[in-house]
Amino acid sequence: MKELTYNQDDLICALATGWGASALGVIRTSGIGAIEAVSRIFSRPEVLNEAPGHTLVYGYIIDADSGKQIDQVMAAVFRAPRSYTGEESVELSCHGGVPGLKAVLEALNKAGFRDAGPGEFTMRGFVNGKLDLTRAEAVHEIVTARTGRAHDLALHRLSGAVETQINLVKGSLVRIMSALELQLDYPEDEVGDEILPLPEEAGAVRAKVEDLIATFRAGRLYQDGIRIVLTGATNAGKSSLFNLFLKEERSIVSEIHGTTRDYIESWVSMDGIPVSLYDTAGLRDADNPVELEGIRRSSDVVSAAHLVLYIVDGQAGAREDELERIKTGNGEILYIWNKIDLSSEPPPEGVFPISALTGEGFGALEDEILMRVRGGLSIGELSGSAVIDSRRQRDLLMRTSEALVHVEEGLSLNAPLDVIAVDVREALDCLGEITGDVTSADILDTMFSSFCVGK
Amino acid sequence: MKELTYNQDDLICALATGWGASALGVIRTSGIGAIEAVSRIFSRPEVLNEAPGHTLVYGYIIDADSGKQIDQVMAAVFRAPRSYTGEESVELSCHGGVPGLKAVLEALNKAGFRDAGPGEFTMRGFVNGKLDLTRAEAVHEIVTARTGRAHDLALHRLSGAVETQINLVKGSLVRIMSALELQLDYPEDEVGDEILPLPEEAGAVRAKVEDLIATFRAGRLYQDGIRIVLTGATNAGKSSLFNLFLKEERSIVSEIHGTTRDYIESWVSMDGIPVSLYDTAGLRDADNPVELEGIRRSSDVVSAAHLVLYIVDGQAGAREDELERIKTGNGEILYIWNKIDLSSEPPPEGVFPISALTGEGFGALEDEILMRVRGGLSIGELSGSAVIDSRRQRDLLMRTSEALVHVEEGLSLNAPLDVIAVDVREALDCLGEITGDVTSADILDTMFSSFCVGK
Repeated sequence: MKELTYNQDDLICALATGWGASALGVIRTSGIGAIEAVSRIFSRPEVLNEAPGHTLVYGYIIDADSGKQIDQVMAAVFRAPRSYTGEESVELSCHGGVPGLKAVLEALNKAGFRDAGPGEFTMRGFVNGKLDLTRAEAVHEIVTARTGRAHDLALHRLSGAVETQINLVKGSLVRIMSALELQLDYPEDEVGDEILPLPEEAGAVRAKVEDLIATFRAGRLYQDGIRIVLTGATNAGKSSLFNLFLKEERSIVSEIHGTTRDYIESWVSMDGIPVSLYDTAGLRDADNPVELEGIRRSSDVVSAAHLVLYIVDGQAGAREDELERIKTGNGEILYIWNKIDLSSEPPPEGVFPISALTGEGFGALEDEILMRVRGGLSIGELSGSAVIDSRRQRDLLMRTSEALVHVEEGLSLNAPLDVIAVDVREALDCLGEITGDVTSADILDTMFSSFCVGK
Repeated sequence: MKELTYNQDDLICALATGWGASALGVIRTSGIGAIEAVSRIFSRPEVLNEAPGHTLVYGYIIDADSGKQIDQVMAAVFRAPRSYTGEESVELSCHGGVPGLKAVLEALNKAGFRDAGPGEFTMRGFVNGKLDLTRAEAVHEIVTARTGRAHDLALHRLSGAVETQINLVKGSLVRIMSALELQLDYPEDEVGDEILPLPEEAGAVRAKVEDLIATFRAGRLYQDGIRIVLTGATNAGKSSLFNLFLKEERSIVSEIHGTTRDYIESWVSMDGIPVSLYDTAGLRDADNPVELEGIRRSSDVVSAAHLVLYIVDGQAGAREDELERIKTGNGEILYIWNKIDLSSEPPPEGVFPISALTGEGFGALEDEILMRVRGGLSIGELSGSAVIDSRRQRDLLMRTSEALVHVEEGLSLNAPLDVIAVDVREALDCLGEITGDVTSADILDTMFSSFCVGK
């Protein structure tokens, strides 16, 4: 069943930590014979070959041809099936410099390891039965999570929260299927209508599926986050408001060395939701409000924004065109009336009065933003035990739900049992595809290709 | 002797891999009681506590208060003195997402670990006798190396190449010192002038020290690299030449995901020397040659350049002011006569004719650049067995050399032996400071503070 584009029989290697100067870099290897293959470029081959699983061996990676030392490493030895991939594996903890890591990878290539594709280690883990597809996807989600809340939700999925829910639903469906099959196999035995599943039973299963589908929006909100663009006339206070966001919200990455300045300046966590803040200061003509619509179409940043904050200088007062825009309104634009600490006149209708200088009004602005981006999400969905984040899982759950609508209808209208059984089977297949019991190579390839290399 | 600002008695922790989404992130811990302290926030405390050194234990990091799972990890257990720091240590291989790594670090803080300062793990390794100071500095150099050549030189230092050289010199000096002391202790015994060290012996020792000092320029060249700025009039072909550099030279980081676009575009390795290329396209008014001097003063990038490549459009021909500049010449500026494939007229004197389009003349340009940046460095210095990169080591070697000049003079002029002995002692102290036998807390603090955290 599992015919994948990735060859499963060879040796793979990849850097599992970030590129760039850091104390350590970890290179992962996996495949049948991986330990022996690494030993060929290791300064202590016998020790490595004889090392029990889950032990660490110190040594040098050496060039097989010249004998030259390439790096000083600590090799973690894993023996099948007790490893991430389920295969034997060596993880090399190297010095974190780029040329050294590249040299070790090249030495591994020479020793017979090919570079792993994205998600290939996790895919091998799945193929070898180490984890189902919902957990495999959670591995990717946990790595790309940008806030603590997103991390917690992904870790919960990794621990099997979604798999458990899917299996519960599957169990209910298997019971319905069994009853149908009993009737189909022994209709002449008059098993009795009372053992036939009721439409309500299918409805209850569908409700569970719908509940899970409903968590998708929350999952995406915490995992993908939202984009907010700050714009407005020159001197309206865009940069001050931008800095206020960074100050008031606990910035995720601001203390982190090595990330670029742009990144530091643009990410904040708002109540666990990752928010990308874009100050249009860097966009050409962004200070000219007449150009705003043009920018919104032309710029990727602005067009991908979930919300635009348009800042008006409340001390100078709004220009005619600005007042017109405020009056007309636009669901995607929030008009901010800045500098209320300096202004004596009351702000017009439809704006948010704040002082980016003193912070006055910022709390209300934050509440408004959160209200808008959360939309109708209930608290339950936001803190739910199993929140799905995968579009693939959502789509399969929707197909499950559709099939169950047909099951419900069929049971209500006393449709032929074999027709109903086809719909139950369809629902079961969709659920099986979510966890990976039933799965095509295409789906796996698509799914794992979004992973980072080394996972 | 070793009184450091860093407390040596407590528990420390730090992320040893780069921040940012990657498959794995490794958090290092060290200190007496580290294993027990980690076990308090580990899902399998007994297994961790009883784990032998150099073994791996799978489990969850949990919140000590709520019992909530924080991350799924593989814990590498090291028992004193067999660890990087010489102390007991646990290295946690976590998922590589930022919020998860921060949560694990916070849990460690709650469990009694403080955040390690830069280089603190290596400093503990030094204090506990795991490595001398030349190797400790090599750890930092290996991590920050940007080309294979720089990595090789640093790895060689890490393997003790510099330490060995220093110890050889020290050995010769100790022999000289012993002879002097014998004379000082037993002058009345008439030990005989013949056992007195000759000035030539001190001279030979000094020659070795000078050889090592001479490698410093090569060390810096490969470790720090050089900056080249491309400038010239609009359409002269700056960007084409820039791209030619990236194409012709094996770019170190171009295949690397996760580094910023600027970084990808600006680094190349020229024969092992890391070269930062700056296209002034992004600098205001850089296209106006009249402003060039202004830019050179105002911009950090340009003012820090080792070499400026000024590109002239050979098809359009040089403007009057450009011809004047070429004629005058400037050691820091190389004038490039571009588009020779389109131009029929011969280029003027003092320029480098190339075609950024066809690549013609690029090899000669490269040779010229390498010749200029290498200056008088000999091949021996460039591929020498022990090349120093540390300014600290260089300064101490220079002090050693000065002291040895006095020793030589003293021996030649039959100066009092106790005066000569003071100079020999000074030289020995300097050498001891290089390896860390003799060292002040200030020096250690300064040295290790330039390290990355987690090393």
